Amino acid sequence: MPHPALGLGFARSRLDRTALPRDGEALARHAADPSALTVVIAGEVPILLVPAEGGSPTALMPLPGLDRLPGGVREQALLGTWDGRPALATLLDPGAAEAVAGDPGFQALDLRSIAVGGVVPEEEAGLLAAAKSVLSWHARHRFCANCGAPTAPAQAGFRRDCGACSAQHFPRTDPVVIMLVTRGDHCLLGRQARFPAGNYSCLAGFLEPGETVEDAVRREVREEAGIGVGRVAYHSSQPWPFPSSLMIGCVADALDEALTIDREELEDARWFHRDEVALMMENRHPGGLRNPPPVAIAHHLIRSFLEGARG
Amino acid sequence: MPHPALGLGFARSRLDRTALPRDGEALARHAADPSALTVVIAGEVPILLVPAEGGSPTALMPLPGLDRLPGGVREQALLGTWDGRPALATLLDPGAAEAVAGDPGFQALDLRSIAVGGVVPEEEAGLLAAAKSVLSWHARHRFCANCGAPTAPAQAGFRRDCGACSAQHFPRTDPVVIMLVTRGDHCLLGRQARFPAGNYSCLAGFLEPGETVEDAVRREVREEAGIGVGRVAYHSSQPWPFPSSLMIGCVADALDEALTIDREELEDARWFHRDEVALMMENRHPGGLRNPPPVAIAHHLIRSFLEGARG
Repeated sequence: MPHPALGLGFARSRLDRTALPRDGEALARHAADPSALTVVIAGEVPILLVPAEGGSPTALMPLPGLDRLPGGVREQALLGTWDGRPALATLLDPGAAEAVAGDPGFQALDLRSIAVGGVVPEEEAGLLAAAKSVLSWHARHRFCANCGAPTAPAQAGFRRDCGACSAQHFPRTDPVVIMLVTRGDHCLLGRQARFPAGNYSCLAGFLEPGETVEDAVRREVREEAGIGVGRVAYHSSQPWPFPSSLMIGCVADALDEALTIDREELEDARWFHRDEVALMMENRHPGGLRNPPPVAIAHHLIRSFLEGARG
Repeated sequence: MPHPALGLGFARSRLDRTALPRDGEALARHAADPSALTVVIAGEVPILLVPAEGGSPTALMPLPGLDRLPGGVREQALLGTWDGRPALATLLDPGAAEAVAGDPGFQALDLRSIAVGGVVPEEEAGLLAAAKSVLSWHARHRFCANCGAPTAPAQAGFRRDCGACSAQHFPRTDPVVIMLVTRGDHCLLGRQARFPAGNYSCLAGFLEPGETVEDAVRREVREEAGIGVGRVAYHSSQPWPFPSSLMIGCVADALDEALTIDREELEDARWFHRDEVALMMENRHPGGLRNPPPVAIAHHLIRSFLEGARG
């Protein structure tokens, strides 16, 4: 069975989502199981368990250990099982992250830093992404978009129901296309003003209602760089839990070369020869230019171009 | 430039989404343009314009012609341009569909029937999908999911803003994986109880937060049929505006054969030899079994299996 590319963030998971039915009582039943584990997120910040005996921090702590953390449980979801034990996600008040600052048994760290730094085992990253996405969705969807009334969690934390108009709401995942546009030995990379200095990456954007993946790639490249795109080939995908996107990675053939850059979206974009990209990948670029780290799917799209592989 | 497979529903569009900026005044400005066109949907039902001189009905009517239709405009969005003319989507009260029943100049017809019957030119299908998805989203998102207050349309109909908590809400598109699972000369097809009698199709399901496309394929096949899946290859994608999904079509290699069918999801599922599938495709199956029509991406996944092509 093929695995995601080495280091690709949030793409690997040992979570078994299929083992436990998500019936109405499932969450309460498994939360009472003394063997249950949970991911804990305080506001937006995961709290990791640091083993007393040393070794990697882990995103999964015994659920009964929640007693050691301050603040009430705001939301909970049953993600599935982990090595046969129920695996939950628990949202605590934001204050819990500060409260554990002096406790050597815990580490509160934002999710990007966890992923970029490889702080938890890679197989836990997909689990963290799932927990973060579902809990963020709960936090921002306490009311019914259809009628404005408060909603209540259902289906083990994977649905919210409106008591007033009976609408059912499901967690949201937003498809994003991210593409490496190539032309012969060159590829198109751009940078947003918010990127770290010297960083150039793939173009990307949200897919719009009514679009295919391929048309979304063509539209975004046309909008941001004024370039026409012919063939589009899917490469790979990645969950990106900020707050809850699905990155759909593609490689795309440019039909022309002259750039018209949308300066509201991009600070810069230009064609890079593969030799220059190779220097960037190796952190040996004379101008200090860099590509994104392996945690980002853009890294793997660029690497596949350097290796001459297409999808 | 490669085109979507012949007949694939909602995948072709001549809509240019990039031509007009979606600033705060864009909708009002272009709605006042006498050359503007609009797709019209009454509640859930598109209203087509039937040319007096004969020929195909069209989903695009001159915006000033809205005066001929009863009921008020509930929502409007600026989709882009069509042959250089502003192209809008307009939501009318559901009553407008019944009101035009006797008028030979209009045809009110549900979107599935339009797509399956090829009622409008194929290049208009993607436009209809976009209009339906965006307008359905407006209709069901009049309130802020974050605080419950009413929201107001913004960004030419591609955003809703909350005046109370300042949250911005964007149209939603739900990724769905749909996959043909194969093993040698056999493929796995299933039927839901709601399907027309004799119809068998690919397995499918919503991608969950924190999943890759490939993991979602593996989970759904495990859940619905008890089959392990190894290699997953992307095939193609399709907008599916009921109400607003992105179908991500894949082919997948089965690792085993013994089926355990989830009877809550599927009425039946079994392995079909490619010779039997060929009879189904040609509507010559002795038992009257059938595959989905070309409008569905499942048709094209099955066809690619019959043709021995993989993605």
